[in-house]
Amino acid sequence: MSDPTPRQHPPYADHRAPWRRSLGHLIFGLNSPAARLYDKVLIVLIVASVLAVMLESLPGLPLATRNILRWVEWAFTILFTLDYVGRLLGARRPLKYARSFYGVVDLLTILPSYLSLLFPGSQYLLIIRALRLLRMFRVFKLARYTDQATLLGEALTASRERITVFFMSVLSLVIVFGTLLYLIEGPENGFTSIPNSIYWAIVTVTTVGYGDISPQTGAGKFLASLAMLLGYAIIAVPTGIVTVGLQEAQAARQGRHCPQCGLNKHDADAHYCKRCGENLPG
Amino acid sequence: MSDPTPRQHPPYADHRAPWRRSLGHLIFGLNSPAARLYDKVLIVLIVASVLAVMLESLPGLPLATRNILRWVEWAFTILFTLDYVGRLLGARRPLKYARSFYGVVDLLTILPSYLSLLFPGSQYLLIIRALRLLRMFRVFKLARYTDQATLLGEALTASRERITVFFMSVLSLVIVFGTLLYLIEGPENGFTSIPNSIYWAIVTVTTVGYGDISPQTGAGKFLASLAMLLGYAIIAVPTGIVTVGLQEAQAARQGRHCPQCGLNKHDADAHYCKRCGENLPG
Amino acid sequence: MSDPTPRQHPPYADHRAPWRRSLGHLIFGLNSPAARLYDKVLIVLIVASVLAVMLESLPGLPLATRNILRWVEWAFTILFTLDYVGRLLGARRPLKYARSFYGVVDLLTILPSYLSLLFPGSQYLLIIRALRLLRMFRVFKLARYTDQATLLGEALTASRERITVFFMSVLSLVIVFGTLLYLIEGPENGFTSIPNSIYWAIVTVTTVGYGDISPQTGAGKFLASLAMLLGYAIIAVPTGIVTVGLQEAQAARQGRHCPQCGLNKHDADAHYCKRCGENLPG
Amino acid sequence: MSDPTPRQHPPYADHRAPWRRSLGHLIFGLNSPAARLYDKVLIVLIVASVLAVMLESLPGLPLATRNILRWVEWAFTILFTLDYVGRLLGARRPLKYARSFYGVVDLLTILPSYLSLLFPGSQYLLIIRALRLLRMFRVFKLARYTDQATLLGEALTASRERITVFFMSVLSLVIVFGTLLYLIEGPENGFTSIPNSIYWAIVTVTTVGYGDISPQTGAGKFLASLAMLLGYAIIAVPTGIVTVGLQEAQAARQGRHCPQCGLNKHDADAHYCKRCGENLPG
Repeated sequence: MSDPTPRQHPPYADHRAPWRRSLGHLIFGLNSPAARLYDKVLIVLIVASVLAVMLESLPGLPLATRNILRWVEWAFTILFTLDYVGRLLGARRPLKYARSFYGVVDLLTILPSYLSLLFPGSQYLLIIRALRLLRMFRVFKLARYTDQATLLGEALTASRERITVFFMSVLSLVIVFGTLLYLIEGPENGFTSIPNSIYWAIVTVTTVGYGDISPQTGAGKFLASLAMLLGYAIIAVPTGIVTVGLQEAQAARQGRHCPQCGLNKHDADAHYCKRCGENLPG
Repeated sequence: MSDPTPRQHPPYADHRAPWRRSLGHLIFGLNSPAARLYDKVLIVLIVASVLAVMLESLPGLPLATRNILRWVEWAFTILFTLDYVGRLLGARRPLKYARSFYGVVDLLTILPSYLSLLFPGSQYLLIIRALRLLRMFRVFKLARYTDQATLLGEALTASRERITVFFMSVLSLVIVFGTLLYLIEGPENGFTSIPNSIYWAIVTVTTVGYGDISPQTGAGKFLASLAMLLGYAIIAVPTGIVTVGLQEAQAARQGRHCPQCGLNKHDADAHYCKRCGENLPG
Repeated sequence: MSDPTPRQHPPYADHRAPWRRSLGHLIFGLNSPAARLYDKVLIVLIVASVLAVMLESLPGLPLATRNILRWVEWAFTILFTLDYVGRLLGARRPLKYARSFYGVVDLLTILPSYLSLLFPGSQYLLIIRALRLLRMFRVFKLARYTDQATLLGEALTASRERITVFFMSVLSLVIVFGTLLYLIEGPENGFTSIPNSIYWAIVTVTTVGYGDISPQTGAGKFLASLAMLLGYAIIAVPTGIVTVGLQEAQAARQGRHCPQCGLNKHDADAHYCKRCGENLPG
Repeated sequence: MSDPTPRQHPPYADHRAPWRRSLGHLIFGLNSPAARLYDKVLIVLIVASVLAVMLESLPGLPLATRNILRWVEWAFTILFTLDYVGRLLGARRPLKYARSFYGVVDLLTILPSYLSLLFPGSQYLLIIRALRLLRMFRVFKLARYTDQATLLGEALTASRERITVFFMSVLSLVIVFGTLLYLIEGPENGFTSIPNSIYWAIVTVTTVGYGDISPQTGAGKFLASLAMLLGYAIIAVPTGIVTVGLQEAQAARQGRHCPQCGLNKHDADAHYCKRCGENLPG
């Protein structure tokens, strides 16, 4: 996700031709109006192409619409190919871009259409075509929300270990409850195997509750009730974790230090220390 | 939602006759006992008319009840027409009211009954009749809860960007999981198209879990379990966002006022104004 | 729920005989070991009687068990009658107890058995018998948890208005979505009336999701998805409200005031002001 | 869960032979690279054996796979037997280990295979085999996450009483709603007994919502809607409890240390010890 075109303190000389440099600023840039416009147009195209893939999957679509969708698909493929070539030319280090997460995604999402020329009518291409959805993650690049997304990311990263402990507890719980209900209810009540019973336990503990498998015996219902109440209560744990993590991430950000009294929880817009009245730096 | 009769600092002269001015104070006012009573009576009438619309939709209702409901409907229509005319006469700027959100709603909710005289027995009128439910939002005008509703609104507004990031993440998640399960399960297991599979993914990730569509294959159940656990965990994120937002909105409110620069978001334990350094009172 | 036997500052003379006074201390008391034992025994009896009522409702119970349960029921009735008479005799003001919430509950829960002697075999007695469950609320009297229950009660009371605003918003939401889906899906897809559609909307927005009614059309599924995402997100609001309310209730409790610098957020176990070092009172 | 081999301040002499001491350090140790490797290998083996038990429960497994799984099972049994013998030999006090929670679990999880030699083909052995899942709890021993798991444990322990009050409220609620719907809907609509109706109430209040039992009458649907809205709102309570508990547990940890009296729960911005008034360092 790192931008392959660093603009400050280049660690080595930039040998790109001026037009390639301009192209790079247009495609990878974040600050100029043209670069912002390029990003917005690209996201509109991505959303449109995702909608086209969805539309194509609808059963009973008339042949005329299918033909139009095929042309639309080729139009998107050509536009995204131009974007890919532009990125290769505009990047300061084309190889680094090609190997990055978005570089691989960009290539994978234009390949399916070209492959369909070589191997027509293949069932498997449907799966490759779905890869185009990966482009959607580019939406997060939108400059406007980047800061808040980063804050949320920091909160989740800071809570990483606690969230792992929580998930390990939930996994233990669903394995134990799944196995118990497999032994109590058995295959005749829909609990056909331990993996299937664990699937039931996940459906229950997360409070999804499809109802395709549900306990029939008294003992099974009693244990299922326990699992539900536990699942209902432990949702409180990740919530507490994220809330505290978010408070900390925000406090860490707002934190500015008073050079006189040392108090370090000043608001971002404070000019003077709220305790000793000292002028705050920064 | 802005009140069309501002009572302080009128930017232009008020040419209403005294009786229209009194009418305006009665209907739009918030402070006099008569105005409060008018609001309460109106809300009781709105709730009663909403209940009547609901009752009318019950199948197998005897003809006598239907006839009574028709008369009740006309009674409400006449009362709400009088209220609408009163608002037009009492407003300082009738046209501004007529174009405001509540002005349009008030007109739309009395039109259906009059239209039914011209075009009897139309199926489409049912839809227009449902517009009366819009009146219900007037309930929020009740002075008593306004302050708390405003605080909640401030908390949600302050968290607007984070909530958008959260919803974009959930949307990406359901599109990816929906597409994956469409490819794995296919139309024979109820996943008839990508939009339908995304509907399933939303039903699953939000832990609603109707069970009208549910995975049948092992791989589908495994991926669905992942989606459930993710959905179960990410509910923690909006909760953390709103909790932190609410704490901030409340802290901002409780904050004290600086007599020199007027900044009013000081912490409860601050001694000096964080912007101008003035000693804070209290 | 107020204790009818105040032990401090009696506003009027206590004319009870010494044995009635001892009985009152035993039954209504909270501090002596005997009174605590009495409370615990009573709660065990209440739980046992509730379990007996549940057991009795099981279909296909053998006649012998039914007969035993009848005797058990009479044993509980006699024990609870003794408790009721004891409370009347031991209370400082018997009439005040008899009219209090628990006094009425105590009477209502012993009446059904005596009434069954006069009107045998009545179907309606089943409903009166269920009243015995009301006793269960006495469990909250357990001295051990009283303090934490009070804190939770304070937090909820302080958030009363916000919770009302939240519930009014949810109600508006389910009425609007229920009506919309009634118009879109119609009786042929299970949305038989507006009240029934509102029931569906509540089942959906609260993420219960029985699946007995679910949208079949594309437009219905789209609107239902919106309702689910909204319901999924707005659960964050009451959580934020209660969390902030609980923090405030706890802070208000721990709050102690420094006589020198005025800081009032000292912990309950603080002896000195954490800012100026002044000795804290109390 | 206490480590049976304390390494600091041994209260009595250690009479183990040097090789048994080394074995103890390898198996029970937490700090040496060899001990960490031993723990990791053991956890991989446990996860693999749990997966094998799950795989074995799949219906329609070919005979060849079943035979392989039988050999794999014996391999795991021998490895876990060696681990058990090693623990007995390496523990400073073998008897204390054998009686501890993990000692009993370790014995119980190797017994089933040996018992199957004496009593072949028994259905009941399946239940004993499931005990192997208990080993999974050893995963929590992983040094890396111990600290965060302890913090979560502290938060939950500190909130113990509030959580109990919450669960007692939920239990009262489901008993009352279960009984009410049993009386309203009756056995003909699936509410066959009070325990079964309470099961329905738990499924509803926890928002699981299987849909195997759901109200059919108008009054039943109205009461069920109330139960859903209550269940939807009260999930906010445990969340608030855990969030506040987690904040407190973390604040208690981050708190600084008083050099005079040793109290360590000072706020980050405290200048003086709140108990003894000593000037705090840092």
